[in-house]
Amino acid sequence: MVSKQYKEMLSGKSVIRQLSEFATKRGLEIGYENVFDYSLGNPSVPCPIEFTHTMMDLLKEKSSGELHGYSPSLGNPDFKEAVAKSLEKRFKIPYEAEHIFPATGAAGAIAHAVRAVTSPGDEFIIFAPFFPEYRPYLTLAGLNLKICPPDTSQFQIDFEAFETLLSPNVTAILLNSPNNPTGVIYSKETIERLATILREKSIEYGHSIYIISDEPYREIIFSNVENPCISKFYDNTLVCYSFSKSISLPGERIGYIAVNPSAEDAKILCPIFSQISRGIGHNCPPSIIQQAVAKVLDSTSDLAVYEKNMNLIYQTLIDLNFQVVKPHGTFYIFPKAMEENANSFCEKAKAYDLILVPGDSFGCPGYFRMAYCIETEKVERSLLALRKFVETEYPKDSII
Amino acid sequence: MVSKQYKEMLSGKSVIRQLSEFATKRGLEIGYENVFDYSLGNPSVPCPIEFTHTMMDLLKEKSSGELHGYSPSLGNPDFKEAVAKSLEKRFKIPYEAEHIFPATGAAGAIAHAVRAVTSPGDEFIIFAPFFPEYRPYLTLAGLNLKICPPDTSQFQIDFEAFETLLSPNVTAILLNSPNNPTGVIYSKETIERLATILREKSIEYGHSIYIISDEPYREIIFSNVENPCISKFYDNTLVCYSFSKSISLPGERIGYIAVNPSAEDAKILCPIFSQISRGIGHNCPPSIIQQAVAKVLDSTSDLAVYEKNMNLIYQTLIDLNFQVVKPHGTFYIFPKAMEENANSFCEKAKAYDLILVPGDSFGCPGYFRMAYCIETEKVERSLLALRKFVETEYPKDSII
Repeated sequence: MVSKQYKEMLSGKSVIRQLSEFATKRGLEIGYENVFDYSLGNPSVPCPIEFTHTMMDLLKEKSSGELHGYSPSLGNPDFKEAVAKSLEKRFKIPYEAEHIFPATGAAGAIAHAVRAVTSPGDEFIIFAPFFPEYRPYLTLAGLNLKICPPDTSQFQIDFEAFETLLSPNVTAILLNSPNNPTGVIYSKETIERLATILREKSIEYGHSIYIISDEPYREIIFSNVENPCISKFYDNTLVCYSFSKSISLPGERIGYIAVNPSAEDAKILCPIFSQISRGIGHNCPPSIIQQAVAKVLDSTSDLAVYEKNMNLIYQTLIDLNFQVVKPHGTFYIFPKAMEENANSFCEKAKAYDLILVPGDSFGCPGYFRMAYCIETEKVERSLLALRKFVETEYPKDSII
Repeated sequence: MVSKQYKEMLSGKSVIRQLSEFATKRGLEIGYENVFDYSLGNPSVPCPIEFTHTMMDLLKEKSSGELHGYSPSLGNPDFKEAVAKSLEKRFKIPYEAEHIFPATGAAGAIAHAVRAVTSPGDEFIIFAPFFPEYRPYLTLAGLNLKICPPDTSQFQIDFEAFETLLSPNVTAILLNSPNNPTGVIYSKETIERLATILREKSIEYGHSIYIISDEPYREIIFSNVENPCISKFYDNTLVCYSFSKSISLPGERIGYIAVNPSAEDAKILCPIFSQISRGIGHNCPPSIIQQAVAKVLDSTSDLAVYEKNMNLIYQTLIDLNFQVVKPHGTFYIFPKAMEENANSFCEKAKAYDLILVPGDSFGCPGYFRMAYCIETEKVERSLLALRKFVETEYPKDSII
């Protein structure tokens, strides 16, 4: 008997994926170079050349057993050591290898982190707007999802709304800064205030509340913006990191969980993650990729293109009178649509070969996301289309 | 709050892993070459050289985006196509790409397969002796595990016991042939009888019962033994396959589920697997490994060494009066211990630097497993130690 729960999910197809498929199909008609496809967050810049060279060296120099044998269930020791050292140096937090758990990208990391510090039936808070996949990630771990409505003025946190959601049943919350879809980074003030509330509530409820901090965009920060390290503000923090965006390896499934050494359960969390692996069929990221990434840990792809794209798009959006918060990083921007219904707005944009994603599935209706991890030349052409779209469909006199 | 369920699991450490750690530690004292370590099923032969060459060619020829970008959520189309064609040719079953779901090894495959065709609370039958990890794999998917006791005469199926376990709450069973730990293959007669019972019971209960067929040892078959293809006998079969053993890539996490095209839900099972992935943090096996394996699909490592090792060990066991079923494949053998308590037997063997795994965690007390995926030269030396161990600890007169 096929599982009812999963069968029902088949009808709820991802909007992002549907739009991406539409873009591909349209590309077959008019050439993909003419489709302004802002749907997917798939990095456009190549991985660092050091990664490719390291892979080749490993294939030449190491024996098959050393290279392709089982990783220990807690992960490749060199990878863990290298990550811990790099984080310690950078953030001045005394990470050691025992605090690092290699995972198959951020999705794998989150699957472990949430199961480790919650139990099925617990309440779990996420903040709108959010990456739509958080919904299945968390509900399928048996959690009772509570969504904190967006602060659309600056895309920080609506603390009033947040405090009404807190209850003794809340055991963890998930943060994503730099944020997908807004590109915004939580300020020091936001994180401090959040940490204070969580500490107070942990005492009041008699149990810890963990922060799961999803940080795949940590390396994509724009000029003159500070990215406060959440773990420095709150002990019970599990960082979920992925190399998908920083070194453009999304298909190779490599990331990790970094357990804050000051977390209440710091000593046992990695062993607990490896127990969770047994239930969900995880078995460490690929061995050769762990070994290669360990050697190029502090390299990044050439990420400057994303800021260049952002500035071009942001300026045009402002010129066209969009309401938009300027991104601090990532390769996303999240403007307010020119009409109340962002679905209708994005549907109309298709006629101009602009593929924009409505904000509804991100928990923020009325807005739309552009993933500008595409070539700058294409961004430039797309902005002409955007101008034409807005001027035709939403002439100035019609906007209040 | 750290999850109670997983915290409790920390105390139940895997016996295999403990013995492997003991072997490593002992190796530091006397040289690992002198420890006869039969604990782990980690392939000893290198991967086919074609795999290494293909990896290098891909790194040289393909762009970073093509090579390392996200795989589609249903898997790399070339990999799916290549697997389907190879299976069709070999087993004369009309597999197409839509029936193949790439997974991170057999563990990843099983995690998807069981969730797709059962619901939490269902009863699920496995057959002793079994790979100990099946227990966490299945219970953590919320299943109510029913263990069919072993047929120790031939390690086929005790059908009388099996039929008493069947009930309308049983929605799937798991088979593992060639079997870990016995090395035995289920005969045509066994599979036919099992299929007949399952078909009858499916009608009686008014719902299908799926076979999940875990086949990582499919390519390691010894001379003159036939390995009947379970999918040819029973439509509702999901094959879970891994390349870990056949091409010695256990660390790279590559395998697949092959949905029998005649299965009741054949058209929707792969889409359902991809929904399950969202909940358990799976996101396709590594992209470069999918691409490389697609090109060397029908290569295997040089597997002949395993048969050579088996024959040496089997002959000595018979000489020493062990009760043992001759393996048909794999790199395992599962003799009866020389005393009732296999734990005590294996503990005593340690003094002879023989690392043997007691059968209790495999659901078959009184027996022990030897994983002979080690060098033949070491096997030869180990058999002298085995002879000495048995002759000293269990002198002939003392055995009934």
